[in-house]
Amino acid sequence: MASELKKVAIVGSGNWGSTIAKIVGSNVLSNPKFDKQVKLYVYEEIVDGKKLTEIINTQHENVKYLPGHKLPENVVAIPDVLEVAHDADVIIFVVPHQFMPNTCKPLIGKLKKDAFGVSLCKGFYINPKGDVDLISNMVRNLLGLECLVVMGANIASEVASGQFCEATIGSRNKSHGLLLKEVLQTDYFRIVVSEDVEVVEACGALKNIVAIGAGFCDGLNFGDNTKAAVIRLGLMEVMKFCDRFYQKHEHRTFFESCGVADLVTTCYGGRNRRVAEAYARCLGQKTIPELETELLNGQKLQGPEAAQEVNHLLRSKNMENDFPLLTAIHRICSGEQPVTSLIDNLRNHPEHL
Amino acid sequence: MASELKKVAIVGSGNWGSTIAKIVGSNVLSNPKFDKQVKLYVYEEIVDGKKLTEIINTQHENVKYLPGHKLPENVVAIPDVLEVAHDADVIIFVVPHQFMPNTCKPLIGKLKKDAFGVSLCKGFYINPKGDVDLISNMVRNLLGLECLVVMGANIASEVASGQFCEATIGSRNKSHGLLLKEVLQTDYFRIVVSEDVEVVEACGALKNIVAIGAGFCDGLNFGDNTKAAVIRLGLMEVMKFCDRFYQKHEHRTFFESCGVADLVTTCYGGRNRRVAEAYARCLGQKTIPELETELLNGQKLQGPEAAQEVNHLLRSKNMENDFPLLTAIHRICSGEQPVTSLIDNLRNHPEHL
Repeated sequence: MASELKKVAIVGSGNWGSTIAKIVGSNVLSNPKFDKQVKLYVYEEIVDGKKLTEIINTQHENVKYLPGHKLPENVVAIPDVLEVAHDADVIIFVVPHQFMPNTCKPLIGKLKKDAFGVSLCKGFYINPKGDVDLISNMVRNLLGLECLVVMGANIASEVASGQFCEATIGSRNKSHGLLLKEVLQTDYFRIVVSEDVEVVEACGALKNIVAIGAGFCDGLNFGDNTKAAVIRLGLMEVMKFCDRFYQKHEHRTFFESCGVADLVTTCYGGRNRRVAEAYARCLGQKTIPELETELLNGQKLQGPEAAQEVNHLLRSKNMENDFPLLTAIHRICSGEQPVTSLIDNLRNHPEHL
Repeated sequence: MASELKKVAIVGSGNWGSTIAKIVGSNVLSNPKFDKQVKLYVYEEIVDGKKLTEIINTQHENVKYLPGHKLPENVVAIPDVLEVAHDADVIIFVVPHQFMPNTCKPLIGKLKKDAFGVSLCKGFYINPKGDVDLISNMVRNLLGLECLVVMGANIASEVASGQFCEATIGSRNKSHGLLLKEVLQTDYFRIVVSEDVEVVEACGALKNIVAIGAGFCDGLNFGDNTKAAVIRLGLMEVMKFCDRFYQKHEHRTFFESCGVADLVTTCYGGRNRRVAEAYARCLGQKTIPELETELLNGQKLQGPEAAQEVNHLLRSKNMENDFPLLTAIHRICSGEQPVTSLIDNLRNHPEHL
């Protein structure tokens, strides 16, 4: 019966959100469990004199954030987040993490009782008590929803082109995890479900900080050895961070796509790496926000904010010295120390003792 | 007393051997435990009408394999391997792995009783019984020496330039491991000692096979996501291989430089990746040995041989299906299947079940 079909909604339509809309729109058409319409929340803006929602609903293409890729016609762009999410069973959040609190506020108390959320956001949230928290916890606390996460080595344009890759779903609830796998998996987008939801999410947020370090290496003209050392020491600090701050987890989760694979991809191909390289090369002539505006065509940078959020936590616990790479990256981003000092912070890393 | 000073010898003078000679030559000068002379075995060849040993001993530069880097004057090039090794306390082997048996034969029964060997070779050895074995075991069995290993994310030219990187020593004997750390560590070459000698060595051999797969991805014009998936699935197969065939080990060894870091570096910057990319692009017009000759200036490729050695072992145990990536790479290298089939072998990888 039509009323029992699961409705999937997508909140956010940047290049990752639009890519997910392409996959979900196609998957629901061939799976009898799902309603055929996928509502997509689009933050309205004017592109070449027309509303972006109108462009998407007529041309079936997000010409600003995912040009060159057709979206299935059953994906409907809507500029009102409540209209998108109010009757959905699965609500996929894929907006820059810093916009999440304001994006969610209109939904408080207005969602289906047994709906669940899915966060694809990378970053942290500083809650009203001043504590650094995961975005999925913000969704749980603000909206009263269970919240799964999806992270992985997923540069959006490559996924949109159908290039083979993997991703990790984090879900404490096994059946929700498997349902979400049906929503997302394709023959080129292969998914593993993990119960370590906190670690899966933290990996996705922390890797952008490490990628800033990798970009600094590139901008300083270091080669692949140095970058591999930064990636490895970054991974060790990510693992230590999860050990200190999150629930008991399996070591092998760091070997999933959300862990080592996403870290590698982001340190070679992502936007955080790119802006960090430019910052190292410009020798203080421009700030990171200036380069973000110049290079990213309206996309947001996640790494420097995540570095600041993590530093807020580490400083409050007097743990900065236990995480020399994450700490150095934050201090370089904030202008407290020069890019050239990065490696000096690593020569006597705790991992070498 | 001079007679108690530890003598360090280096067997092999390719670009990695020459880089190690640069480091060791410098370190022994400033450490009172060591004899100041470092003998370097050079496979004699004629370069521009002169013997390579003479060039090294007069110009203090290996103009063929490490041009542009001066070797310390206390490094002495010698074309006779027995003369180099017979009185040494620490014998560092750094030759292409397929040359190791013949290189070692002149040394049988002629080395100091309490000397120990160190293998920097990447690959396997098929012993007289037809079993696939580690190079360090060949040294143990053939020469009766304890044998340590050193592996890590160490593209030679970058190490020679003093760019920051890390490496892993594998040693069951703690004091030998720490002595070797004194021989090798510098402020830019940071070393961790692990007891999991078999895993450290196997990582170094197996990563070259995965790098062939990464090179195929590049040659097929896949982006960073697909390559990250190949790297991750490769790492999972390396771990499974070590679980099946080697002594009990710590999971964390795969997070050392010999594991994830070396794998990443080799998949982005190494010669195996480079030749594999060229092979994928030439669409069957050239063989891998032809490309090796054309692109590598006399350096040897380790990946295809290692893939064959590993396949020999997996086939004999009826385990090819448990290692679909390693198996596909071997079959592509040997011409049994086309490069384009690589990804099809990964869509239903056991890791996705």
